[in-house]
Amino acid sequence: MNRIVQCVPNFSEGRDLDKIEKIIDPFRGKEGVKLLDYSRDADHNRLVVTVVGEPEPLKKAVLQAIGIAIKEIDMTKHQGQHPRMGAVDVIPFIPIRNVTEEEAKELAAQVAEAAAEQYGLPIFLYEKSASDPGRENLAKIRKGQFEGMFEKLKEEEWKPDFGPQTPHPTAGVTAVGARMPLVAYNVNLDTNSLEIANRIAKNVRHLSGGLRYCKGIGIELEDRGIVQVSMNMTDFTKTALYRVFELIKIEAKRYGVNVVGSEVIGLLPMEALIDTAVYYLGIEDFSMEQILESRIME
Amino acid sequence: MNRIVQCVPNFSEGRDLDKIEKIIDPFRGKEGVKLLDYSRDADHNRLVVTVVGEPEPLKKAVLQAIGIAIKEIDMTKHQGQHPRMGAVDVIPFIPIRNVTEEEAKELAAQVAEAAAEQYGLPIFLYEKSASDPGRENLAKIRKGQFEGMFEKLKEEEWKPDFGPQTPHPTAGVTAVGARMPLVAYNVNLDTNSLEIANRIAKNVRHLSGGLRYCKGIGIELEDRGIVQVSMNMTDFTKTALYRVFELIKIEAKRYGVNVVGSEVIGLLPMEALIDTAVYYLGIEDFSMEQILESRIME
Repeated sequence: MNRIVQCVPNFSEGRDLDKIEKIIDPFRGKEGVKLLDYSRDADHNRLVVTVVGEPEPLKKAVLQAIGIAIKEIDMTKHQGQHPRMGAVDVIPFIPIRNVTEEEAKELAAQVAEAAAEQYGLPIFLYEKSASDPGRENLAKIRKGQFEGMFEKLKEEEWKPDFGPQTPHPTAGVTAVGARMPLVAYNVNLDTNSLEIANRIAKNVRHLSGGLRYCKGIGIELEDRGIVQVSMNMTDFTKTALYRVFELIKIEAKRYGVNVVGSEVIGLLPMEALIDTAVYYLGIEDFSMEQILESRIME
Repeated sequence: MNRIVQCVPNFSEGRDLDKIEKIIDPFRGKEGVKLLDYSRDADHNRLVVTVVGEPEPLKKAVLQAIGIAIKEIDMTKHQGQHPRMGAVDVIPFIPIRNVTEEEAKELAAQVAEAAAEQYGLPIFLYEKSASDPGRENLAKIRKGQFEGMFEKLKEEEWKPDFGPQTPHPTAGVTAVGARMPLVAYNVNLDTNSLEIANRIAKNVRHLSGGLRYCKGIGIELEDRGIVQVSMNMTDFTKTALYRVFELIKIEAKRYGVNVVGSEVIGLLPMEALIDTAVYYLGIEDFSMEQILESRIME
């Protein structure tokens, strides 16, 4: 795999293992597609699949999985703790390697158009793919959930980007869009003051004047008696990990507090850390093609 | 490819393109083997191939290439600027991913034994595979070159590890061994004093009291009017890049000199830089399995 897109489709089925296996099946044993992970939650009654692939084979596999999910899931009988508006609730496409943001948006649009046409599914484009700033935020699109969509879609403001202007009777509505890889990154402080962690979070996060692609809050690590600035880095290619790390060190100084470490939760693309190493070592003219693994994946 | 070994065989043919293509052919189009690069030099009359693969398919491909090289190359007629002792001069095996040093040594021993048996080739194990400290250094084994091997192998001290105690009449002698990935890493200083670069190189390199897996010299970058400490890091898993970088900064201080950047020449494994990022960010409990690309390669 040389050009790699990640896709993390969320399906509204977290209980029936037979149905879950059927939905996942299109992501298995295909050239150019690799299933990395899937997790289901019975309380949420939701399935989250993590898959990567070359754009074309990935597109085909996702469209197959949508078709199966629509057949298997009946939203009129669905209950669960997680907000949801459709059998295929949301399908984000994330550029990972040799794929631009524009190309991920193009892929999302192709999947949205084909799914609307093949399955009569109304589809909203969201995040980077949004046709309107009011549609970037998934929570806004999903407000009202499956049950509320029948009224919501009648409003001109909520005309879907693709497909009919009425929800699929049993599969509801789906959001499809491109977003950048999200890195869950936390920085630990040698204090137990949650207030200090929250103040620092406010200083570094975008919402309150900080870095453009950083969301953050303070949280307590009770068992360790310390606090941390817990963040989602929503585009590390533009807001680098080292930048927020150094900024937190600077902000912590004013409280006489030190940074004692950090943590990365879950997966992240190699580039996020290579970028950081290249910064600290001051490496000149570095190319990702110098990474042996990049060459192997070509 | 999940378990990856790199192999960089050196063949004594840098001029005849037909022969070169024949020698490279076993590394093309094979499941579990990927040819990354090859470069030939007519003056050196030498071919350097860079290939990666899973241990078993790589072993088979290397043995095939050895057989072809022995048939195609006649060392009695070979001339070139680079020292050489055989048609297949040297075959290093380098553990890259999910392969231990021990397993790379085992692979080297298997190839050495099979090549000796199949082709009647005397073989010395060198570097990490050496049966004796006096055989670690390739230059010592190769001393006397092809022409001198006929006398050298008569000495009890230079009995080959595998194969006959006399050179192959037209293919000479081959060295096979495991070594760690070598990273060519240079650190630039804001001075034009070669003496300072050399003093710092002496302080950080193993030979004169520095870090165990670091070789280094000072060199001038004439076009930029600065100097650099030019290094070969011979095992970055034990002597990390950030460690030598920080040590050079500390040493440079005593001369009132600053480090102004660094450079990596050629390829390096992702782990060498991930390790560095994890150090500078103080990331706790990081696993290489958190790298998306690691998961994709599984």
